[in-house]
Amino acid sequence: MPASEIDRLIELLAKLPGLGPRSARRAALHMIKRPAQLMTPLADAMSSAARAISVCQVCGNVDTSDPCGICADPERDASLICVVEDVADQWALERTGVFHGRYHVLGGTLSALDGINPEDLNIGKLVTRASEPGVVEVILATNATVAGQTTAHYIMERLAAAGVMVSRLAHGVPVGGELDYLDDGTLTAALKSRRPL
Amino acid sequence: MPASEIDRLIELLAKLPGLGPRSARRAALHMIKRPAQLMTPLADAMSSAARAISVCQVCGNVDTSDPCGICADPERDASLICVVEDVADQWALERTGVFHGRYHVLGGTLSALDGINPEDLNIGKLVTRASEPGVVEVILATNATVAGQTTAHYIMERLAAAGVMVSRLAHGVPVGGELDYLDDGTLTAALKSRRPL
Repeated sequence: MPASEIDRLIELLAKLPGLGPRSARRAALHMIKRPAQLMTPLADAMSSAARAISVCQVCGNVDTSDPCGICADPERDASLICVVEDVADQWALERTGVFHGRYHVLGGTLSALDGINPEDLNIGKLVTRASEPGVVEVILATNATVAGQTTAHYIMERLAAAGVMVSRLAHGVPVGGELDYLDDGTLTAALKSRRPL
Repeated sequence: MPASEIDRLIELLAKLPGLGPRSARRAALHMIKRPAQLMTPLADAMSSAARAISVCQVCGNVDTSDPCGICADPERDASLICVVEDVADQWALERTGVFHGRYHVLGGTLSALDGINPEDLNIGKLVTRASEPGVVEVILATNATVAGQTTAHYIMERLAAAGVMVSRLAHGVPVGGELDYLDDGTLTAALKSRRPL
């Protein structure tokens, strides 16, 4: 029978994505056995992150500075704006190290079912940013899901007046992917977008 | 590119069992989006747990008091000691609400391979406890694995002189289990230990 402090810890850990009640108990016990090596450092890391982190008023990214490190970096190409649904998507693109422009984080996708309308997303600021002089291209890097594509389509229409080029990520066979395991939609897209060698 | 505070948080979260680098990133982002509802409370819960928790000098359980709540509870039957490998096993048994005796947490199993010898486990104190007047039975509730059973066998020999009854958990078909999916060892044990109806 865990003490109330432990119960509270388990209860909060179980709210993290990917941790159910059982794995939250395991994680709690793992910490409890390593108070100095893990539990206290983790608690400190969370407290300091909670204090330090804010949302970038330019792009919607989370960072310890506002504007965020990317928006404030003069080395990043301000003529390119890559639109992503979520901060996690931005992190994923940054890990590739290939993109040197700036980002715009929507904070979700349009969803009539969940009552998420354009004004609930960070779209207004995007339209303003895209209309600024110097912006050449907006890359719509929303997920290749119905919600993501619907949102991309909506944004494309909103950007029509901004006079910027609007592009989207290529669809196709994932690198390392086996055709046999791919869905028909991906195969169709890959065939349609085939490139001469 | 997450800021250094976020990187540090992800790195520490990835040390928890069941969280890899990807799920640690997801968990960190989930927290970052809920600083007041989740991140700060979780940090506080960890700090206070880290401060409050100690190991019970009697049984090896972790609790906010020493002796632990169970050892200190006069309602718990002091004549029964249930020996478990880990605190998690003790929690599992407590959740059943069936056992009203006390526990003894070994802190692992004997393992020649990993160099875990009897003196590395909480066995000496168990022998002392078992020899105290009033103790009638020691239940060996180690896991039904080779390591668990080896450890149980060793403890049984150590307890021979203590003059207490030594028992172990029953082996058999798990409740809700289907015979077709059970291993031969379990089926053999269930057959051998069959009971008249």
